[in-house]
Amino acid sequence: MKIRHVVESQQFTLPMLVELFSIADQMERVLARGGTQDYQNKIMASLFYEHSTRTRFSLESAMYRLGGKVLSTERANTFSSVVAGETLEDTIRVIGNYADVIVLRHNDLGGAQRAAQVSSIPIINAGDGKGGQHPTQALLDLYTIYKGIGTIEGVKVALVGNLTDGRTVRSLAYLLGKFERVKLYFIAPKSFQIKQDILDYLTKHNVWFELQSDLKKILPEVDVVYSTRIEPELLTQRGERLETISQYFIDDTILKLLPPHALVMHPLPRLHEISPTVDTDPRAAYFKQTRNGVLIRMALLASVLGY
Amino acid sequence: MKIRHVVESQQFTLPMLVELFSIADQMERVLARGGTQDYQNKIMASLFYEHSTRTRFSLESAMYRLGGKVLSTERANTFSSVVAGETLEDTIRVIGNYADVIVLRHNDLGGAQRAAQVSSIPIINAGDGKGGQHPTQALLDLYTIYKGIGTIEGVKVALVGNLTDGRTVRSLAYLLGKFERVKLYFIAPKSFQIKQDILDYLTKHNVWFELQSDLKKILPEVDVVYSTRIEPELLTQRGERLETISQYFIDDTILKLLPPHALVMHPLPRLHEISPTVDTDPRAAYFKQTRNGVLIRMALLASVLGY
Amino acid sequence: MKIRHVVESQQFTLPMLVELFSIADQMERVLARGGTQDYQNKIMASLFYEHSTRTRFSLESAMYRLGGKVLSTERANTFSSVVAGETLEDTIRVIGNYADVIVLRHNDLGGAQRAAQVSSIPIINAGDGKGGQHPTQALLDLYTIYKGIGTIEGVKVALVGNLTDGRTVRSLAYLLGKFERVKLYFIAPKSFQIKQDILDYLTKHNVWFELQSDLKKILPEVDVVYSTRIEPELLTQRGERLETISQYFIDDTILKLLPPHALVMHPLPRLHEISPTVDTDPRAAYFKQTRNGVLIRMALLASVLGY
Repeated sequence: MKIRHVVESQQFTLPMLVELFSIADQMERVLARGGTQDYQNKIMASLFYEHSTRTRFSLESAMYRLGGKVLSTERANTFSSVVAGETLEDTIRVIGNYADVIVLRHNDLGGAQRAAQVSSIPIINAGDGKGGQHPTQALLDLYTIYKGIGTIEGVKVALVGNLTDGRTVRSLAYLLGKFERVKLYFIAPKSFQIKQDILDYLTKHNVWFELQSDLKKILPEVDVVYSTRIEPELLTQRGERLETISQYFIDDTILKLLPPHALVMHPLPRLHEISPTVDTDPRAAYFKQTRNGVLIRMALLASVLGY
Repeated sequence: MKIRHVVESQQFTLPMLVELFSIADQMERVLARGGTQDYQNKIMASLFYEHSTRTRFSLESAMYRLGGKVLSTERANTFSSVVAGETLEDTIRVIGNYADVIVLRHNDLGGAQRAAQVSSIPIINAGDGKGGQHPTQALLDLYTIYKGIGTIEGVKVALVGNLTDGRTVRSLAYLLGKFERVKLYFIAPKSFQIKQDILDYLTKHNVWFELQSDLKKILPEVDVVYSTRIEPELLTQRGERLETISQYFIDDTILKLLPPHALVMHPLPRLHEISPTVDTDPRAAYFKQTRNGVLIRMALLASVLGY
Repeated sequence: MKIRHVVESQQFTLPMLVELFSIADQMERVLARGGTQDYQNKIMASLFYEHSTRTRFSLESAMYRLGGKVLSTERANTFSSVVAGETLEDTIRVIGNYADVIVLRHNDLGGAQRAAQVSSIPIINAGDGKGGQHPTQALLDLYTIYKGIGTIEGVKVALVGNLTDGRTVRSLAYLLGKFERVKLYFIAPKSFQIKQDILDYLTKHNVWFELQSDLKKILPEVDVVYSTRIEPELLTQRGERLETISQYFIDDTILKLLPPHALVMHPLPRLHEISPTVDTDPRAAYFKQTRNGVLIRMALLASVLGY
């Protein structure tokens, strides 16, 4: 697979996803053998206009696992050139002479697309703007389901929490909709439900879905519970009662309702969504997600740098 | 060539410049072959007391292209030791036990010289103070002219914009003055013209120069137009009219007056000095400058680390 | 030697210290041969919740000297996840999927211990909280005495300056107390003397010690003078006269009283504790300490990563 840029989830067709997961599987074997120096002459530039130490660390770890090198700034917005009024396009052209791939976290919606249009080297979108894309996160979530359940076709996924604002859930719903016989349950208080654009997309592609507010009812039949945070301050802002949040809390009681093969996922960081007592349950997959993130990002870096 | 420290442009004699450019040419061939790991056991410390992400990235990229490793801080001024009142000299002695070369961006004029006096490892000056030196920038500019025009002897260069304050232009004028039959045109509003010390230096070394305010008039006869920014706020401060700036704007009309072999250069970032429509013209050399910067810095690092 | 985590000085028994110093000696030979790439597939994560550029640089230098790679943040407290309320434990579990060893500087007393309890990869404590541990500093101090004097048994050490607050001196006194026939002189103004808990420990372990305020008197009989800073503002706060500080100042006059084989040590940064004229004396060991720090940290990293 040769990808030029990784800008948005939508660019990945089903065959591309299958191939990407196969490369990620190979990367796991590479790590098990102690790693590689195959990309030792390659440089990745981490260009973060917004803080996201975790995403940055995950991508830089992936580059290091490939043997590569990393130029890094978490404060691209304080670039003297940016302060001086330089356009994103000029900055990208300059960095193109310093590195072999740019990982870009930009504060503007569409920033990654603008960068890709002028860049002489591959761009990997590490998040652009509120409500923008964060494709590597969506891909690692999908890969975690694939590895944990064994397939994505026919998988039943409960998406829980703040489904309105989180780009994670929106992107995942989008990607899951590409697979056959998938069933999606959107479980959230009314003012945090999934937006109509995603539902329209699912309807158009004949994906089965259901809007629910009762988590316990659907638990026995799902393969995956994907939990996300509802910020307490948003709850009150949107006129919901604070107690509502407890309905979405995942603890040992909830685990008893969940099939033994199921996965409990979360994009992290968690606050009170999942009890620490769940951590030792074999179904807890949220820390595995971070490990799979390195594998998927290794696969993406290898794909854009030449595999 | 064995250099101990890179402190100021003046330290480079004509034969040293010729050899440096020859090493930079070799570095281009090294990159074309996919890079080297020759310096994989060497560590460069980026010690930046002031922000300059671009200069830092360029030097770190050069070190990585040589196979080396990089310790990096953009906030050397928040070193607990510096806050506690440690002298620059002590800091340099300490870092000398952590690295093999120090790239220093200091806020005080003469900081690099002070560092070099006590350092057990090579110092590369990445800019010291307002009006101080930034020798690697001057060298990459000169190298870009050398590569683009084929020679520096007899070259005709128009230096345009804020010639009073920019150390880039001052250092470049200084270096160009070392070569035979060079002609320099200083094109700027009166309150932004080149300072007398540079003119005295050029007179003393029999370098032909001319002060001009009309860019269009000299364009047909030059090999290089080197444009720099005049900050609008400085214009008004110095009693010039804002419209003045448009006389120095480089666009397609200006390009038509320029010989086909000429170069349009700029230290970047640009704001409104050069129209984006110029970017695709083969004479646009400002992004090539950033690429040449990596080559020159590879050559300098190799020279101080042992070539 | 296989260590799991480096959390506190107390975990090192006498045989472990002997073995650690032997590994550090080997590391010196590795550096003399030009370094190693033995750990090129290993990643160290520098997770600093507080600034400490010098400690960070020293540890990162050690990892690079081993051939390894480094993920680095000096602002772990601005991790979006930490801001969002993530526990240290969750952060450590996540980073455990990105790296092979975590160097942790935490602001809370006991932070390193908490991290070690949940971490899937080794933790090296690079300082936790005011009055907490900083074991790698204590170990490098001890190693400097061992290398400089040839042995630690029977060594006579004057600890000078602010002995109340500095964790450096407290940890060093603790470690020295493990060796036979050591003599410790605590030389400080009354309100900066060593605390009773250390004296109790020394008494319990039959370590000879003496509290003194007169530095000159004991100088002729010591092997090591370990100087630390007394902040002038603390002096006045605690009702001491500012002139007091001059009694602890180490200059050429003081040097004349010191045996020719002795060491002058200081954890750095220094302000006015040691005259710059002392720097060229062969007994000045404070810059050697920073070099020994890299060796000891290489030995510790190799020990936790598998030697």
